Amino acid sequence: MVKRVAVVLSGCGVYDGTEIHEASAVLVHLSRAGAKVQMFAPDADQMHVVNHCEGKPTEEKRNVLQESARIARGDVTDLEQLDVSAFDAAIIPGGFGVAKNLSDWAVKNKDCTILPHLEKLIRDFHKAGKPLGMCCISPILAAKVLPGCELTVGQDKECEKWPYAQTAGVVKEMGCKHVNKDVQEAHVDIKNKLVTTCAFMCNAPVHKVFDGVGVMVKETLKLA
Amino acid sequence: MVKRVAVVLSGCGVYDGTEIHEASAVLVHLSRAGAKVQMFAPDADQMHVVNHCEGKPTEEKRNVLQESARIARGDVTDLEQLDVSAFDAAIIPGGFGVAKNLSDWAVKNKDCTILPHLEKLIRDFHKAGKPLGMCCISPILAAKVLPGCELTVGQDKECEKWPYAQTAGVVKEMGCKHVNKDVQEAHVDIKNKLVTTCAFMCNAPVHKVFDGVGVMVKETLKLA
Repeated sequence: MVKRVAVVLSGCGVYDGTEIHEASAVLVHLSRAGAKVQMFAPDADQMHVVNHCEGKPTEEKRNVLQESARIARGDVTDLEQLDVSAFDAAIIPGGFGVAKNLSDWAVKNKDCTILPHLEKLIRDFHKAGKPLGMCCISPILAAKVLPGCELTVGQDKECEKWPYAQTAGVVKEMGCKHVNKDVQEAHVDIKNKLVTTCAFMCNAPVHKVFDGVGVMVKETLKLA
Repeated sequence: MVKRVAVVLSGCGVYDGTEIHEASAVLVHLSRAGAKVQMFAPDADQMHVVNHCEGKPTEEKRNVLQESARIARGDVTDLEQLDVSAFDAAIIPGGFGVAKNLSDWAVKNKDCTILPHLEKLIRDFHKAGKPLGMCCISPILAAKVLPGCELTVGQDKECEKWPYAQTAGVVKEMGCKHVNKDVQEAHVDIKNKLVTTCAFMCNAPVHKVFDGVGVMVKETLKLA
């Protein structure tokens, strides 16, 4: 049976959208596994547009769906049209788009709210017993919607290799169990059918991120 | 000895910039091979900006270097600063950015001109006996600068799998030898140290494009 997977994007580029290499890795691994993929993104303005050379916001306006279409080579659907019954699993790559366009985590951290339609979708996939795969910062969506779940955002001790390790502490404060994992590993929360890997939360070479995402995709498909 | 590879980008998104999954595949394979990578792009306006949902140009203006920085996670250098002596090889991923921002192939086809600085760089790498890796539409740059070279842009008979097969005919008219290859293969022109693979010139699943780019990267590094 071909597994049908919804991939949720949040723009195009690490600082204001979906992290490009995480999304590409998700698509390569899903393609190799023979999964049928449909990509989705909200048809809404980005929180802001970041000049990726300088790392600073500009005055521009861009639309999340249109920018996500750059990753999707044009084939992306408005998130409003995502019908949970048509899919066996959902995967959400990381990037600041998750914290800026799919939620307001970038501003409010653990007090954030999630795009209401996406929150409902995550809840519906979970209720239906369909697995969710997340990487990098996107596990914070699960932390918010599925309190008490187990997940990884990498390691909980900050150092050069783990510049965002404080996120693990925040996730614990939210009532989740954080599991330390290396970049080429994923954590599987069997009970919640939630599969997570740290991806670029780790300061690692891109092929290690690619491999970690591969483990996340494989484990997600196993649960589907 | 660590191989030092310059990767030349042309924006971010298949229809007006670098094809994202080709660039990501290049970076993953170079990373796995232990190569030292530096990314470059011209600091210039894009020919135009395409709404990737509709496939149509918009009124926006974007800068090639800034958009390339989305793929490079901020770490991209003005092409003017590329010093051939500091590298063992150069790789140019595809996407319409090659035909719009690095050359005017999209408008003038075989009568195109190439960004003068890039033309000089390609010539200098070639003169220095340093290999060039290209994929998708970027081999047209070699066809223009290195007349008589051997390359592949996939197959020369148009069908659903090969929608851009007429490019092979144009390359032959330019005096090059076109070699038919499948998506998971690359062609090596030993004499010119030119390695090419068709990538998304083929209507293929993304993991096959990833694998073909992998062969191109491996053969390029072998020649370096």
